[in-house]
Amino acid sequence: MDDKTMLMIPGPTPVPERALTALGKHPIGHRTGEFSALIGEVNAALKWLHQTENDVLTLAASGTGAMEAGIINFLSAGDRVVVGSNGKFGDRWAQVAKAYGLNVEMIEAEWGKPLDPEAFRAVLEADTDKTIKAVVITHSETSTGVLNDLEAIVGYIKAHGTALSIVDAVTSLGAYDLKVDELGIDVVGSGSQKGYMIPPGLAFVSVSEKAWTAYATANLPRFYLDLGKYRKTAAKNSTPFTPPINLYFALHAALQMMQNEGLEAIFARHDRLKRATRAAVKAMGLPLFGADECASPAITAVAPVSVKAEDIRSLLSKKFDIALAGGQDHLKGKIFRIGHLGFVSDRDVLTAIAAIEAALIELGHDGVAPGAGIAAAAQVLNAG
Amino acid sequence: MDDKTMLMIPGPTPVPERALTALGKHPIGHRTGEFSALIGEVNAALKWLHQTENDVLTLAASGTGAMEAGIINFLSAGDRVVVGSNGKFGDRWAQVAKAYGLNVEMIEAEWGKPLDPEAFRAVLEADTDKTIKAVVITHSETSTGVLNDLEAIVGYIKAHGTALSIVDAVTSLGAYDLKVDELGIDVVGSGSQKGYMIPPGLAFVSVSEKAWTAYATANLPRFYLDLGKYRKTAAKNSTPFTPPINLYFALHAALQMMQNEGLEAIFARHDRLKRATRAAVKAMGLPLFGADECASPAITAVAPVSVKAEDIRSLLSKKFDIALAGGQDHLKGKIFRIGHLGFVSDRDVLTAIAAIEAALIELGHDGVAPGAGIAAAAQVLNAG
Repeated sequence: MDDKTMLMIPGPTPVPERALTALGKHPIGHRTGEFSALIGEVNAALKWLHQTENDVLTLAASGTGAMEAGIINFLSAGDRVVVGSNGKFGDRWAQVAKAYGLNVEMIEAEWGKPLDPEAFRAVLEADTDKTIKAVVITHSETSTGVLNDLEAIVGYIKAHGTALSIVDAVTSLGAYDLKVDELGIDVVGSGSQKGYMIPPGLAFVSVSEKAWTAYATANLPRFYLDLGKYRKTAAKNSTPFTPPINLYFALHAALQMMQNEGLEAIFARHDRLKRATRAAVKAMGLPLFGADECASPAITAVAPVSVKAEDIRSLLSKKFDIALAGGQDHLKGKIFRIGHLGFVSDRDVLTAIAAIEAALIELGHDGVAPGAGIAAAAQVLNAG
Repeated sequence: MDDKTMLMIPGPTPVPERALTALGKHPIGHRTGEFSALIGEVNAALKWLHQTENDVLTLAASGTGAMEAGIINFLSAGDRVVVGSNGKFGDRWAQVAKAYGLNVEMIEAEWGKPLDPEAFRAVLEADTDKTIKAVVITHSETSTGVLNDLEAIVGYIKAHGTALSIVDAVTSLGAYDLKVDELGIDVVGSGSQKGYMIPPGLAFVSVSEKAWTAYATANLPRFYLDLGKYRKTAAKNSTPFTPPINLYFALHAALQMMQNEGLEAIFARHDRLKRATRAAVKAMGLPLFGADECASPAITAVAPVSVKAEDIRSLLSKKFDIALAGGQDHLKGKIFRIGHLGFVSDRDVLTAIAAIEAALIELGHDGVAPGAGIAAAAQVLNAG
């Protein structure tokens, strides 16, 4: 049905009416007291969401822009950088680092498997000369739904002492209890169309004091992505360049809703939706792509065998106007991904599971009792 | 009055309801046939607006991001670049070029005066070794309302043969008859919150075949601003990174409105609003900051003597909820700027003039008959 799309993809995520209404307001001047006050409130709420006292800077960019800024502002050409990758986005950050002439060393895991924290420990402990300047890690790998063990890896980076931790939290920020200050993470990048519950167009980078010290001598060229400019103006509740005013309106509304819900409730909701989705997928006799132990609270990837992933996606889209994500790169056609990130409720997960069940029946996936998925999801949701 | 702001600044410009309604719609997936079709229509309309067959690429960024991309994609470290500057934005492009290690040579004019095309001719003609790789020019200098003689300067660049022309058309695109292909301009940067009539958050770069040839060997580091990535995906009606979906919805609506109005009518309207504004300012006994011969169709800067610029701005804001722009940098407090760019009608200019007259009466600006401004503006608007 036209105009009836239900987003169950890892971004853009569904947007609350309150945020859409704010988005559709007439813009105001961005160099006014009124907008400055809004920036102040937004910046305070961003720190709350990041659980940090660090600067959280807002850019007009995609998440990739934020991650590029997070890498290039704190390093110099030839610097040794360790990049963890077990998916499309880990690979992308390595490409960014290479584009700027950084000396990139990869720690990889198969797509669908988590990064091994021990591999980071070994490399970091062996680096007694402290030549490693940064470690880049993707927390929740959007392409596979795998959550890496950030706590363990960041622990090894802290023990190293010199290297900065640069984290892609694009699909974990706002979904997972990411304690930026408690863990001592230096740089965290994220994007608005994910846990923030608003459309794409804004990206965020939090920056620690240690990273700012590195900034002072880092020499990679930058202007639009120069975070020093953003820091300077953020201190005055302003921006270095014209900000996407209407997206700020929406962000302001969405952050208020998040504060009303509370961090604990937000994380509990995402965890519940994850568990319900995974229980249902298992009950429907479909193989999960990643293990429970490393399951992202934002995305569940499914690798069906008896039916084709694209057939399920296609039926859900055509018959029920539900958008599921497909696989990326070599996983194209092999997996489908259910997003349960941001403004997603228990009802949404039940709906998606019901639709997948209907599709499985139509596709002749047998050996499983119709309704088994819903029953399993309902049990998790009822238990809370 | 709360919620009654009328924007008469050079950006953000007023946004039509049709574009706001589109902006406030629920986002759809950006990797869908539906969004791909929208990108295709938007890209075709952007070429129409730019009067070009060149690629017109869309970035999630401010106009500065577009201009930085327009500079760094086609040059290598140490390249000799001539930057024209007669205002804040000309200065900014020099800063961008310097940040990337380019060898910058300035051609400057006093703020409020136009760049001298002869200065460009002299430098370009003297460069018989063809060491100048690019000339960067700000067409409509937003900070002063001065329109530079792009046709003449680009003519000299064409005669040089080697140098690329890189043009900041942020406040001229969509307001001035900028014939990109007829003039043979290589790179044109612009931003959504100006002539495009939508909020900030999108930026545009058009790129000629000659510039793409330079791209092939240009070695400045880039990833998010790498225009090659945007070109590759634009050919498939896609984007390299998650696009600001809702701003695309608004852009699509605004471009349709512009196509309905027609290029000739759009340019005639801006020219009429400029002439009406300038006639009114003169009739009110206020000195214009720039000469008629180099007046931007987008912005009129006024340098009042008997009253303070900030007092006029303040009264218009407080009493009539009309936002005028102030001066920037050393012109702060010395000028005010009236924006008549984008979704601005004859009525809007009449309104702004009437409000300025009311403020002048209150501020005791004398020697001018009340109503003289409106009479002068009306005469121009009636004549068409």
